[in-house]
Amino acid sequence: MNRITSLFNIKYPIIQGGMAWCSGWRLASAVSNNGCLGLLGAGSMTPDLLRQHIQKCKAATDKPFGVNVPLMYPQIDEIMNIIVEEGVKIVFTSAGNPKTWTDWLHQHDITVVHVVSSSNFAMKCDVAGVDAIVAEGFEAGGHNGRDETTTLCLIPSVRASTTLPLIAAGGIGTGQSMMAAMILGAEGVQIGTRFALTVESSASSVFKDYCLRLNEGDTKLLLKKLSPTRLATNPFKKIIEEAEARGATAAELLELIGKGRARKGILEGDLENGELEIGQITALFRQQQTVAEVIKDIVEDFKRVSKLNFELE
Amino acid sequence: MNRITSLFNIKYPIIQGGMAWCSGWRLASAVSNNGCLGLLGAGSMTPDLLRQHIQKCKAATDKPFGVNVPLMYPQIDEIMNIIVEEGVKIVFTSAGNPKTWTDWLHQHDITVVHVVSSSNFAMKCDVAGVDAIVAEGFEAGGHNGRDETTTLCLIPSVRASTTLPLIAAGGIGTGQSMMAAMILGAEGVQIGTRFALTVESSASSVFKDYCLRLNEGDTKLLLKKLSPTRLATNPFKKIIEEAEARGATAAELLELIGKGRARKGILEGDLENGELEIGQITALFRQQQTVAEVIKDIVEDFKRVSKLNFELE
Repeated sequence: MNRITSLFNIKYPIIQGGMAWCSGWRLASAVSNNGCLGLLGAGSMTPDLLRQHIQKCKAATDKPFGVNVPLMYPQIDEIMNIIVEEGVKIVFTSAGNPKTWTDWLHQHDITVVHVVSSSNFAMKCDVAGVDAIVAEGFEAGGHNGRDETTTLCLIPSVRASTTLPLIAAGGIGTGQSMMAAMILGAEGVQIGTRFALTVESSASSVFKDYCLRLNEGDTKLLLKKLSPTRLATNPFKKIIEEAEARGATAAELLELIGKGRARKGILEGDLENGELEIGQITALFRQQQTVAEVIKDIVEDFKRVSKLNFELE
Repeated sequence: MNRITSLFNIKYPIIQGGMAWCSGWRLASAVSNNGCLGLLGAGSMTPDLLRQHIQKCKAATDKPFGVNVPLMYPQIDEIMNIIVEEGVKIVFTSAGNPKTWTDWLHQHDITVVHVVSSSNFAMKCDVAGVDAIVAEGFEAGGHNGRDETTTLCLIPSVRASTTLPLIAAGGIGTGQSMMAAMILGAEGVQIGTRFALTVESSASSVFKDYCLRLNEGDTKLLLKKLSPTRLATNPFKKIIEEAEARGATAAELLELIGKGRARKGILEGDLENGELEIGQITALFRQQQTVAEVIKDIVEDFKRVSKLNFELE
């Protein structure tokens, strides 16, 4: 038991990232039913669809679960009202200012966690009064910070900058990396990539199978002139890389991307034209597992490495 | 005691990176005298100067030390002959094919370690018959791999790809990060940045003081069209960043860089025009220490975190 398991009333301090096109009620409820915290990813849902997923998630688990809300979501007022109406008690916010919604959510008795990529943002969370933070490193999939600080460097810095309960993210998907994160000062971990590739993830099986064959170096942080995003190798990524190499402007990149690229890649499994968002750690995973298998693996590995004894003279 | 301490006959499995303009005889001998492995950085020395540093290092310590040799060094035959003539027994090679020199060095009874940035290169080291490898992640300072794999993701992958003794590098400078690396599968660590900033480092005190004030996000991996290099924020870096943003070619970048930039920045302390090579982890360090203080800190922190108990239910 630590501050993270207490805060969410969960057995293991493991949070499943609320990922666009992956994190629906099937994934979130399976994670919560296995002693960890499942999150719905509101970023890729209309307000109506989010309400349906919340209702299905409540029907599928009596354990705590939450919703991840990117703060630049266009109909954010509607989303937040649905969360309150449906009685969700945990919200993870990201990609925006934690000041905007924290007080309002607290007034509705909701626990607020904000995702950051630097100590500077962590200190803003402290001022905003959030209940915990996720510090996410450069190796994470999808949207990412501008500083490019890796999890190994980020966690000790953030730990030194705030006393808030701290969840590490980026490059974590095993019991070993979870233990490494705890040694560095985290009290819990948020895992995206490994859960995105489970049976219960709503991503296309074409996308999952493709990611399960990726190797080291097959993802790259691109689109830095817009919003830095880690993408897996495919023809779409190649087009972006070539455009950036010749100095394409933000406007040119926006036009190249167009609309609905991530949906195409992750949900529809269009490996040619879709945007494939996945973390570096994908290279470690070769077979599809259920959520229960993933959590069992992580917990067993964590317990095993916690018994290792590295004696110095 | 493990395979790394046995291989080098040292007390702690900590290696000081052989860094250009930082790693002379003062730094290497101090590290070796404190129970770790010091390395001279041949990359920034003429053959004659390297011979002087080896001789001074032998006079300053009776403990094992080694030389780091970048394999693209122009007069490499001369360098290697000096190493043999002077009786150095440990060579770390980097930036080249481990096949080229490993057998010859072994014939002269020299232990060979090669630095890699991916599992693919690690497997080539296995075939080449090196005695150990250093796997260095994206967060490391100076020259870096093309895959941008962070230490947290790299170490487990490399560990799975070879049974060679494995030293982790990149983002490591504390007992906590050393323990994290061991949990991930490493048997030792190579530390660059923190040693580059010690009293005994031959870098300019202007450079050291500047690095000791850097924050998260103040280094960036640039020059990817040439050889990816992590640089600290300064007017020279800004020129490179702007050139890259507008799509500058490799030839244009080469011309912008000119000659002697790293010497200017690191050895001469020219913060305006010099190339300042340092790792991300620099943001964690705020005061100059001696080598003895650094090693004492790391060992104490390592021992302290090894006693922590992270119990899962």
